[in-house]
Amino acid sequence: MNIRTPSRAGGRAARRAMRTAPNFNMLPGLTRGIPLCEVMDGAQVERIDAASMYILENVGVQFRDPIALQDWKRVGAKVVGELVYLDRDLVRDLIATIPSDFTYHARDPNKNVRLGGKHSIFVPMTGAPFLRDLDDVRRNPTLDDLAMFHKLSHMMPALHSSAHHIVEPYDHPISQRHLRITYSSMKHSDKTFMGMTTSPKNAEDVMDMCAILFGEQFLEDHPVTTGNCNGNSPLVWDETMLGAMRAFCRRNQPVLCSPFVLGGANTPASVPATVAQLNAEALSALAYTQVIRKGAPAIYGHYLSTVSMKSGAPMAGTPEISLMNFMIGQMARYYDVPWRTSNTLGGAKTFDAQAGYESATTLQAVIHAGANYIWHSAGWNEAGMHCSVAKFVVDAEQCAMAYRMAEGPKWHDFDQAIAAVSDVGPGGHYLGHPHTQDNFQEAFFMPELFDNNSIEQWTAEGEVEITERALSRAKTLLAEYEEPRLDEAKNEALLDYIARREREIPAADELNQSY
Amino acid sequence: MNIRTPSRAGGRAARRAMRTAPNFNMLPGLTRGIPLCEVMDGAQVERIDAASMYILENVGVQFRDPIALQDWKRVGAKVVGELVYLDRDLVRDLIATIPSDFTYHARDPNKNVRLGGKHSIFVPMTGAPFLRDLDDVRRNPTLDDLAMFHKLSHMMPALHSSAHHIVEPYDHPISQRHLRITYSSMKHSDKTFMGMTTSPKNAEDVMDMCAILFGEQFLEDHPVTTGNCNGNSPLVWDETMLGAMRAFCRRNQPVLCSPFVLGGANTPASVPATVAQLNAEALSALAYTQVIRKGAPAIYGHYLSTVSMKSGAPMAGTPEISLMNFMIGQMARYYDVPWRTSNTLGGAKTFDAQAGYESATTLQAVIHAGANYIWHSAGWNEAGMHCSVAKFVVDAEQCAMAYRMAEGPKWHDFDQAIAAVSDVGPGGHYLGHPHTQDNFQEAFFMPELFDNNSIEQWTAEGEVEITERALSRAKTLLAEYEEPRLDEAKNEALLDYIARREREIPAADELNQSY
Repeated sequence: MNIRTPSRAGGRAARRAMRTAPNFNMLPGLTRGIPLCEVMDGAQVERIDAASMYILENVGVQFRDPIALQDWKRVGAKVVGELVYLDRDLVRDLIATIPSDFTYHARDPNKNVRLGGKHSIFVPMTGAPFLRDLDDVRRNPTLDDLAMFHKLSHMMPALHSSAHHIVEPYDHPISQRHLRITYSSMKHSDKTFMGMTTSPKNAEDVMDMCAILFGEQFLEDHPVTTGNCNGNSPLVWDETMLGAMRAFCRRNQPVLCSPFVLGGANTPASVPATVAQLNAEALSALAYTQVIRKGAPAIYGHYLSTVSMKSGAPMAGTPEISLMNFMIGQMARYYDVPWRTSNTLGGAKTFDAQAGYESATTLQAVIHAGANYIWHSAGWNEAGMHCSVAKFVVDAEQCAMAYRMAEGPKWHDFDQAIAAVSDVGPGGHYLGHPHTQDNFQEAFFMPELFDNNSIEQWTAEGEVEITERALSRAKTLLAEYEEPRLDEAKNEALLDYIARREREIPAADELNQSY
Repeated sequence: MNIRTPSRAGGRAARRAMRTAPNFNMLPGLTRGIPLCEVMDGAQVERIDAASMYILENVGVQFRDPIALQDWKRVGAKVVGELVYLDRDLVRDLIATIPSDFTYHARDPNKNVRLGGKHSIFVPMTGAPFLRDLDDVRRNPTLDDLAMFHKLSHMMPALHSSAHHIVEPYDHPISQRHLRITYSSMKHSDKTFMGMTTSPKNAEDVMDMCAILFGEQFLEDHPVTTGNCNGNSPLVWDETMLGAMRAFCRRNQPVLCSPFVLGGANTPASVPATVAQLNAEALSALAYTQVIRKGAPAIYGHYLSTVSMKSGAPMAGTPEISLMNFMIGQMARYYDVPWRTSNTLGGAKTFDAQAGYESATTLQAVIHAGANYIWHSAGWNEAGMHCSVAKFVVDAEQCAMAYRMAEGPKWHDFDQAIAAVSDVGPGGHYLGHPHTQDNFQEAFFMPELFDNNSIEQWTAEGEVEITERALSRAKTLLAEYEEPRLDEAKNEALLDYIARREREIPAADELNQSY
């Protein structure tokens, strides 16, 4: 990829040399330099807030979990059966202790990233039950396939995380799978990673493995992983998610509080009302994180789609998804908490133009919306049913391009560049000018996976479309992969832990999918 | 397409009936309801302005045209050979008389559109020397192919214009082609259209034909067509473009003053400095329109790409193109003139995922940038070398989606939708709720050309990718096309004019391409 930390020393020759070497250095976490797209005025933000608080106070939220119900009673909420009615003052008091931003720690401290405010990261997709592999064949994934995606995540500069189960490894028993997934994330990349929340017990295992990797006390004071907890819209949180949430929050690790929105099916047929319901759902979970542990980091989340009237299937890249992203960003900032969105979603079955339109539209929306934790940033296709290797590397390059855009224009050499206009003059050309030679590559991003050759050259080279180019790129990357060395003692301890837990946990062979 | 003018009467049954009928009604000109992406603060805008004025005063602009040089001398500019040095006060005085916005008149007055400020229109691509046809075969176009694109432009709701030579009709002599192109635009659609500027004489013919269609006096008082005048960056305007500009401005018809930017090749390797040079170029032409005719409408234009270091070819969908669009929009608004941009550009050779990413990225950028005259909004691929029928209909649907986004969220039924949350309650579903049934389709856009079915259904239906779906859609549209009746006397007069001019103009057989 041709994005890198700009050199400020060494002159033209050094810069040229650097350009020719492949660069797999992670870009620092994005600090945005362009304004936010805010489609609501202050009164409209307050109208959403008021509607959400009305819902929390009068409609209630179902917590299908006895411990959560006890917890809510303990802090004075009205509980009727499984329904919890949350007073707006209680909600505001609780969420007030969520940190506005935090540093998310990686195995390599140089790859720590900040989250919240102007600070954003790109995280690859997770949860695909199928992959389209290095030959573009759609099939069930294995642990080796998962390792491949963790390696690619490690190498793509704009990805800030190796996430967790990018694809579901079907060749390992489901009940033990979370151990191998977590180990694969930790071993194949030294970037940040995510932790499995497929059950409370699994989440505890992830916490224990993080304690081995980072140290128990370090874990207590530093976010080192994130766990996703999906809500069941409308207005339901279940025992699995709440149990996993407790496992993470108790150890001070951030969860994404993510209502799962299929707009029009499990929300009203209205963009602002969908946002109000989603907001109520997210607030109820964010508030609960602070019941579990006051001051624990937490992230305002969501999975967001609108559904097809024809098939009921989730759609991607629609205008309402963009608008809702803009609005949700405003709500998260209103409550001063970091927020998560979903990037590059698509419903296409192959990596065709539909996939390109859907993904780029969503990427642009989430950048303008100012999302902090930009999840599902690479590979997602077929409504999340498969992760495509080809799309993975193209999406990751698109993230690098969006990163460049979100930084905003660079003014450092403006006066020299204007002097070049005088040098070149009317009718001249710039390619030979020293300012151009020194600055071209840092001034203009050149996508490696886009072909801009003439049709004649493209034909001569075999009429290669983007899928084939991207798969070829992925193979080259994997050939150049170098594993970031994991401390031997920690590696042994992790393997011992996994061996012990696999003896303790009975193997089961059914599938377990989570998103 | 499933965008329509919302019904406010007739109840649920009437709305349902309307939904099932195909709707080819043009969407009104877009009035944006979301904020602008402005990446410069006031001081940075003034820094661009100052650099541009420095260039105009000290580097000068070459006007390769004796009449223009005389005109500039007449208004007191310093002229040295073909170089014109424009004092900033003169420039500001001249551009002050350009209207901030104007109504662009169509043959059907219901299809008049407003341009400037919050008012924007989508115009299809023009100038392609090849097409990918209804069978996705790449070949030279004919007048029949051009008519096909004019028909599709007429039918796609989000396109506000039939433009002019969407493709170059190779089956008609080049010297007479502008007559047939203009007639095709006028006859096959009653939306706004563009006028050829391939020579001053051709531009005069277009003006005469507009006078026949709209009446001489109407033309004098109302913009009914637009002409594009490309600059040769850096800082050159040629005789062809300036002569065509005079033909349009004298008849009070707006021109697009469009520097042709290949970022890094004919501009400095700097985003802000490229914008400063482009701005100087645009200002010099905008100022000249007012030398020709004070108060004539004119549009701040540009064609914008960055070039590949590998091949020198123009690239599309890059982050710098987005940033420059944001900045150019700010400059146009600083001078209070309407502005034109280029939409959905792409360098892909086929309608693959690259084309989708490039087009969607650019579409999102120009919407956030607030462009008024959004040209090249449908069909562009292969760096403009071909217009793709498949991409044309998909792009046009994408414009309808972007239109919906740019309108912003709709709050009219917010209270009823929140009441539905109370009705449905935790764990319920909305599809059967009356509010959903009444509002679903107006709340959520459903793209017709995206497939969101399951893989099983998609496979059962023959694994049809977007190109094939789009071509099938185009064939259906063309089968349903109804020609908007042209007044018989006007039609006769136009045909007489063409016959006379074709007797007067010697036929030539070389190619003539313009963008």
